[in-house]
Amino acid sequence: MSFQLKEWSSERLEQVEQALSAWVPSDAPARLGDAMRYAVLDGGKRLRPLLVLGASDAVGGNGGAALRAACAVELIHAYSLVHDDLPCMDNDVLRRGKPTVHVAFGEATALLAGDALQALAFQLLAPDDARIPDRTQARLCRLLALAAGGAGMAGGQAIDLAAVGKSLTEDELRHMHRLKTGALLQASVMMGAACGEAPAQALAGLEGYGRALGLAFQVVDDILDVTADSATLGKTAGKDAAQDKPTYVSMLGLDRARAYAAELLEQARAALATTGLADTRALLELAETVVHREN
Amino acid sequence: MSFQLKEWSSERLEQVEQALSAWVPSDAPARLGDAMRYAVLDGGKRLRPLLVLGASDAVGGNGGAALRAACAVELIHAYSLVHDDLPCMDNDVLRRGKPTVHVAFGEATALLAGDALQALAFQLLAPDDARIPDRTQARLCRLLALAAGGAGMAGGQAIDLAAVGKSLTEDELRHMHRLKTGALLQASVMMGAACGEAPAQALAGLEGYGRALGLAFQVVDDILDVTADSATLGKTAGKDAAQDKPTYVSMLGLDRARAYAAELLEQARAALATTGLADTRALLELAETVVHREN
Repeated sequence: MSFQLKEWSSERLEQVEQALSAWVPSDAPARLGDAMRYAVLDGGKRLRPLLVLGASDAVGGNGGAALRAACAVELIHAYSLVHDDLPCMDNDVLRRGKPTVHVAFGEATALLAGDALQALAFQLLAPDDARIPDRTQARLCRLLALAAGGAGMAGGQAIDLAAVGKSLTEDELRHMHRLKTGALLQASVMMGAACGEAPAQALAGLEGYGRALGLAFQVVDDILDVTADSATLGKTAGKDAAQDKPTYVSMLGLDRARAYAAELLEQARAALATTGLADTRALLELAETVVHREN
Repeated sequence: MSFQLKEWSSERLEQVEQALSAWVPSDAPARLGDAMRYAVLDGGKRLRPLLVLGASDAVGGNGGAALRAACAVELIHAYSLVHDDLPCMDNDVLRRGKPTVHVAFGEATALLAGDALQALAFQLLAPDDARIPDRTQARLCRLLALAAGGAGMAGGQAIDLAAVGKSLTEDELRHMHRLKTGALLQASVMMGAACGEAPAQALAGLEGYGRALGLAFQVVDDILDVTADSATLGKTAGKDAAQDKPTYVSMLGLDRARAYAAELLEQARAALATTGLADTRALLELAETVVHREN
């Protein structure tokens, strides 16, 4: 079964890489196109695209729409990293083992590349292409905009900024992560589902799955920030503690954080079982990969 | 006729202000919502929303869709100003007579507010609301994404960055402005048109109108940067020359730049006459206002 996921993912990852390379333009003016491609290509685990494609497969979704949605979500993720790494935010110089975009291209170009990647995400979702129904295009734009904006990812980053050096309750920490990383992960699942026509029960189950998976991802991220080294992570390890950021590890301790991640994996599994969908194996194994990853 | 435009605009401006105030959330986390509202409300001439509404009126467009499109375009414009003012870009401290967003809220919050405003623009265009047809939602998202991204506004800003201290040909300068400010102004017109069903001839005429108007706007901007003072402009005057940026005035001289603006107004007028649409008075007078404005 684990071998199956590998095959399933490697086939889909190849599609995603090819599509991203085709759709992120090299010919944007000045060095903008180069910076956009640098930010997006040859890096990243592509978890979000795989979640989109796994959910779309589970509901028998429109393949062309799903590939666009997979790439769009990854572009939003990539832009958020570019902006997050800027000196006025996390001021990070290493990402996926490479110099960050502003180190390689300068701050102004990094800022614009992030802005252009966000616009490109919505451009991919609304093509002048009759094979992607208008209804699907509109739903995908709706889900992505909500997840990326002030009530989602950007809002979570704002809470994160305001929380440095403060103590949060576990509820506040969970709320921050629900927005900061959870919203886009959950949207990936729901966008995949929006590529087909799933019954309400399936959508509710997928929503629960996405919620548990999003939170699990962050708990494991916090654990790895403490237990892994920079080379394995491909980014600066230990920076949460260095920046005095509240994390699940600082709040619960390492053992309870690990137990919480395992509990969330069970929640994700249980939610999938309620969908009534025939084949949710890819989604299930993706959740296992998220919890058991080493970087 | 001039009085009519005043009445037409003041009614529509009131709608736009009310809608923006309702749709830009005050409850986004931390200070994000405050920064977003500060960037958008109580300022700006709202030229782009008026172009959307004027074009929608001309084609008998869906009023609800047009109001959403008008606000979405303004949000993209507002976010671009917030990012453009950041220290790593133009490093400007004054905008519409007020401290810029990063001066008032800090750089990190300004960055996130811009990001969240871009997402909110697409959120407005893709509501879960059957009164706005899916087809219209998808077209509006498509037009806005293209105009905002690397082949539009963000691309123009990248050319602008790369051009500081260099000499451009008039063609290169025109290309930069077509992207940097022209793309969004033209998209405003075409988004208004996309709220209805206009024949191809009307769309072609509106496209020509939008192109001429977009360029005229920039030529006049360059003229005002030289001839007006900061108090009238509500932003720092003379900054193009101070930053050694190529402008229509530095390239053509003041007299020829003025003549060019007048010529573009004639082009806009001529293009409107080819649309075959019954009532393009608002669009015509908006073009006159753009060319004859004092700030």
